[in-house]
Amino acid sequence: MIRVAIIGASGYTGAESIEIILRHSEAELVYLTALPEECGRVADCFGRFKGRCDLQIEPLDFDKLKATADVALCCLPHKVSMGFVPKLLDAGLKVIDFSADYRLKDTAVYEKFYEVKHTDKPNLEKAVYGLPELFREQIKRATLVANPGCYPTGALLAIAPLLKEQLVETDSIIVNAVTGASGAGRNPSAKFHFPNMNENLFAYGVGSHRHTPEMEQIAGEIAGCDVEIFFQPHAGPFDRGILSTVYCQPKGKAGSEGLLKLYSDFYSDEPFVQVCQAPPAVKDVAGTNYCHIFVTSVKGKIVCFSAIDNLVKGASGQAVQNMNIIFGLEETLGLK
Amino acid sequence: MIRVAIIGASGYTGAESIEIILRHSEAELVYLTALPEECGRVADCFGRFKGRCDLQIEPLDFDKLKATADVALCCLPHKVSMGFVPKLLDAGLKVIDFSADYRLKDTAVYEKFYEVKHTDKPNLEKAVYGLPELFREQIKRATLVANPGCYPTGALLAIAPLLKEQLVETDSIIVNAVTGASGAGRNPSAKFHFPNMNENLFAYGVGSHRHTPEMEQIAGEIAGCDVEIFFQPHAGPFDRGILSTVYCQPKGKAGSEGLLKLYSDFYSDEPFVQVCQAPPAVKDVAGTNYCHIFVTSVKGKIVCFSAIDNLVKGASGQAVQNMNIIFGLEETLGLK
Amino acid sequence: MIRVAIIGASGYTGAESIEIILRHSEAELVYLTALPEECGRVADCFGRFKGRCDLQIEPLDFDKLKATADVALCCLPHKVSMGFVPKLLDAGLKVIDFSADYRLKDTAVYEKFYEVKHTDKPNLEKAVYGLPELFREQIKRATLVANPGCYPTGALLAIAPLLKEQLVETDSIIVNAVTGASGAGRNPSAKFHFPNMNENLFAYGVGSHRHTPEMEQIAGEIAGCDVEIFFQPHAGPFDRGILSTVYCQPKGKAGSEGLLKLYSDFYSDEPFVQVCQAPPAVKDVAGTNYCHIFVTSVKGKIVCFSAIDNLVKGASGQAVQNMNIIFGLEETLGLK
Amino acid sequence: MIRVAIIGASGYTGAESIEIILRHSEAELVYLTALPEECGRVADCFGRFKGRCDLQIEPLDFDKLKATADVALCCLPHKVSMGFVPKLLDAGLKVIDFSADYRLKDTAVYEKFYEVKHTDKPNLEKAVYGLPELFREQIKRATLVANPGCYPTGALLAIAPLLKEQLVETDSIIVNAVTGASGAGRNPSAKFHFPNMNENLFAYGVGSHRHTPEMEQIAGEIAGCDVEIFFQPHAGPFDRGILSTVYCQPKGKAGSEGLLKLYSDFYSDEPFVQVCQAPPAVKDVAGTNYCHIFVTSVKGKIVCFSAIDNLVKGASGQAVQNMNIIFGLEETLGLK
Repeated sequence: MIRVAIIGASGYTGAESIEIILRHSEAELVYLTALPEECGRVADCFGRFKGRCDLQIEPLDFDKLKATADVALCCLPHKVSMGFVPKLLDAGLKVIDFSADYRLKDTAVYEKFYEVKHTDKPNLEKAVYGLPELFREQIKRATLVANPGCYPTGALLAIAPLLKEQLVETDSIIVNAVTGASGAGRNPSAKFHFPNMNENLFAYGVGSHRHTPEMEQIAGEIAGCDVEIFFQPHAGPFDRGILSTVYCQPKGKAGSEGLLKLYSDFYSDEPFVQVCQAPPAVKDVAGTNYCHIFVTSVKGKIVCFSAIDNLVKGASGQAVQNMNIIFGLEETLGLK
Repeated sequence: MIRVAIIGASGYTGAESIEIILRHSEAELVYLTALPEECGRVADCFGRFKGRCDLQIEPLDFDKLKATADVALCCLPHKVSMGFVPKLLDAGLKVIDFSADYRLKDTAVYEKFYEVKHTDKPNLEKAVYGLPELFREQIKRATLVANPGCYPTGALLAIAPLLKEQLVETDSIIVNAVTGASGAGRNPSAKFHFPNMNENLFAYGVGSHRHTPEMEQIAGEIAGCDVEIFFQPHAGPFDRGILSTVYCQPKGKAGSEGLLKLYSDFYSDEPFVQVCQAPPAVKDVAGTNYCHIFVTSVKGKIVCFSAIDNLVKGASGQAVQNMNIIFGLEETLGLK
Repeated sequence: MIRVAIIGASGYTGAESIEIILRHSEAELVYLTALPEECGRVADCFGRFKGRCDLQIEPLDFDKLKATADVALCCLPHKVSMGFVPKLLDAGLKVIDFSADYRLKDTAVYEKFYEVKHTDKPNLEKAVYGLPELFREQIKRATLVANPGCYPTGALLAIAPLLKEQLVETDSIIVNAVTGASGAGRNPSAKFHFPNMNENLFAYGVGSHRHTPEMEQIAGEIAGCDVEIFFQPHAGPFDRGILSTVYCQPKGKAGSEGLLKLYSDFYSDEPFVQVCQAPPAVKDVAGTNYCHIFVTSVKGKIVCFSAIDNLVKGASGQAVQNMNIIFGLEETLGLK
Repeated sequence: MIRVAIIGASGYTGAESIEIILRHSEAELVYLTALPEECGRVADCFGRFKGRCDLQIEPLDFDKLKATADVALCCLPHKVSMGFVPKLLDAGLKVIDFSADYRLKDTAVYEKFYEVKHTDKPNLEKAVYGLPELFREQIKRATLVANPGCYPTGALLAIAPLLKEQLVETDSIIVNAVTGASGAGRNPSAKFHFPNMNENLFAYGVGSHRHTPEMEQIAGEIAGCDVEIFFQPHAGPFDRGILSTVYCQPKGKAGSEGLLKLYSDFYSDEPFVQVCQAPPAVKDVAGTNYCHIFVTSVKGKIVCFSAIDNLVKGASGQAVQNMNIIFGLEETLGLK
């Protein structure tokens, strides 16, 4: 049994990670940590764990961590994470980090978007971007995985085959995405107060969302050249899911049938990517680790649609998928 | 034109009051006040007023109030209100107070449920309970109206005919009610954070909700004897509305047809109460000042159902209805 | 591996059964059937099964059924089911029937509420009511299980300890319940059309819901005497869950602490019942086989609250729990 | 008083029209019609009109119509409408038609998208496109107004100033829009069944939505040249509203401040268009006739956002606005 510690267990991605590990046949929860004021029985923190998980959430003790766990799912926020990850690694654990701290290879970009100095460049260099569909081989050998952001996961899976095959212009990709409200995290706020968010829909982060450079970096790696992405996020009145609608300019002629064949081939061995014959629905992937994709060529554009659950394939599910890969387990354990 | 001031304009009942007065042909908004930190353009506070209301929300200045307004809709919270109402009255205004401070005639009960000493007994004595369907004559002559609570409005309208005609046992009335989330007010909280409240439903205030003594007091006035009510509130995943399901023990034989006739007669002249032939739906009254009621006798019980919008008939709409009555206007102005 | 057939796989309880069996380590789906017009790939019927289940839904062939399956989860509607169950049993399968056809022991009651003659009295006599918390021993030996209705599951678990200990009057129990919209099934209708159901809440089936006699029959068995229940269902704007609020008249003095102790003891060995210290929330049990219960004594009444997922503990999860019991498997397999 | 007939009163836009006319101080409902099977008391058809509107919905009788009404709000579906409009005009009424039948000036385009022959070309030629912000002068003199589609209303208001000033490339405009579920109309369907639509979001009509040629025609009129628009609609889990996110390629340098100034000037006299300083929220315009717009220049693109209520500014509210203009009333009557 892989012994799993969850660092930052009191947030939504922590809870989702607990949920998945509870169903995992070859991994077990051994240690849950959070800030002291968030500690206590996990079932008191999240009522849905009553009778399902008796663990306490405790303040982090590195000695205990070292003695009990093989892997840390580090669900800490951006900027905080890089203060902890080096110690988790020093304790001999594999680390799957949910924050953005180990995703952006160019620290200048990181520092511009996160407005803080990067304090752990050595580990940043070693970190592997945890999108298994594209970087499975590197993940197998990784000690530290930078688990992708939720929006980049949806957007990159939607366009990876096009980029790989260099079928689209790389200076005019538009990613229009809508996330469910769980994406805002567990802290109450005016925007996500039920009477405001319910029956509502709005754009935010116009031209400035922090997931933009992450998308561009990985898209560039796939395409082998610089890629410019205009990413526009929106928040909608549902719990879970991200629907990404991606508009691309084809380089040459591209037929819808050929595109579907390209996508089906590209993802033919992928357990969690389904290429569909029609635009996907967020509800079909909610609560699962699946990504549903549709692509078509119409009116001179290639349009790609992808749907994921932001908390599962966009966070905790993908983290467990990465964990399974690192430890040589069947990749779908706990996730089917 | 009646000149209306709204005291405490930055909350949901304040906003709803603004909305209604904007459509009122014989009343106009002249003054909006709130705590200093809530002040600014009303359209900045509530985006829906962009282009519809240019007023500023300002800190309360009693001199300005006195000079500009005929009536104050006082949307302050319980306990706070009774510190302001005497001064509003001294300024020569009619006052319609949304808080509980002037509803409970027995200050011992008030002080038990609100855990604070009542500081304005003289005005409490003069205050009229603002449920027009039952106290219209008194309201006409009132200077200070205690606008009813949202739950009591729904529950009392549902059972008033039964109580008046002494058709039910008065020691075993059960009021089961579900409110929309706007009932929780505008301050973000963990319970009403969208990812918690959405797709959720739960009971609260078991046996202890502060609207219980209010229901019992008014029910007792209607029945002419002590009435005991077991009131159980719940919160559900919708913005607006209260559905009350009231279970009563009939004193004698009561047929459903006779009950519907009794209700239709009782409310025949009421502009805002509709007696229905089937259980009402919250959505049919949302955004309106109407109360839809159904009553039936079945399996040895009388069951009454009522639906209102908690922010309109349960708060701001009823306040404007009371205002219309006080000033001798057509009762439905601004509310149809 | 237990080989599972799902009869009537194209509805919501069929889909939920598929979902659960897919995660079950000792059971496998072997055969899915539905009416001819509903047949085809299960992933075309329910998009969420894309990549997760390659089975076809096929018209029912009893020979194939006999050859391939050990147990049938029979998700057919009321009245239809009793035409199929005898043949499923004749084919040598264990049968867990989701309909009401084998729940009501008194066929006169069945025929009154379902307005059709009961055509399978021999099997009705043998059928065991599948509420494991109360009838586990009988279920172990059953060939045919009548899987309980969703509302009776929630209501009976809420009051069983009170009935067993004869702590409450048995002629005045009121069950007020609210179900999520999945309870209405998969066929589109005006009431459950999104623009009608969203932001809505309403009562239905006043004094006449078919789950009433089922509740009364089982409550009577538990109490050892006739029990009269006033059951009032409502439909609310959420997918999953039933919240039951049950009002009882205590026979003698009953303290809240004593009641919580009684409930905790009563359910101490139950894997899926959690006795809580506060009213339960539907969202905490959504997607799980758990029932969360709270009980308290206040204002001269005992009030019990229970929350379940109507499709899981109220249908498919409970069916799998029953299947596990019948086949001697660990009761929680596939359900934790 | 303007005497208003509503033809096709049993659908959502009919109901919304009733709602608005009920509040209109210089117009009154005189005649409501629908197909015979939809007839009856309007309050039976829409519970929200109980006590507010005593009219019957009746089968259409042109003689009665001629005798009673000054204007017809024709809420019939596409293809059906053009069979009725000539007779409504012959009866001497002004007609505001909600269908697409009089919007597309090129009947070849109409016939391609609606797959039916256009049967009323004479009136098509005379029809004026009812977007008051752009065609107010023509509307003043119109006998027949083609009320705009919901999506075109939102999209065109979002980009009109850019087109007018020729600031963007006209071959690469992308309109990404999300509508609330009321846009699907009142007929129940599998897609809009609550348990499917709730917690869901999906794209539809990829590259083929019938509002595309309408957008392109009017955009072309504004720009004075051919305009190509890629329009992608989506449906989301809320009742009302359309959020349009429009991506444009600027022709030259365009600063955000300059754009906001351009928009503010362009719409400075418009009572129902509000230029905002941040992306608009659907909830702020729900239930109103307002359009909230934000525009910005970022990362080499101009992005415009608009929010409207699809049933109000996108249908019935705009129709009443047009009616007010035609009859020389204050344009905002009934709509503020």
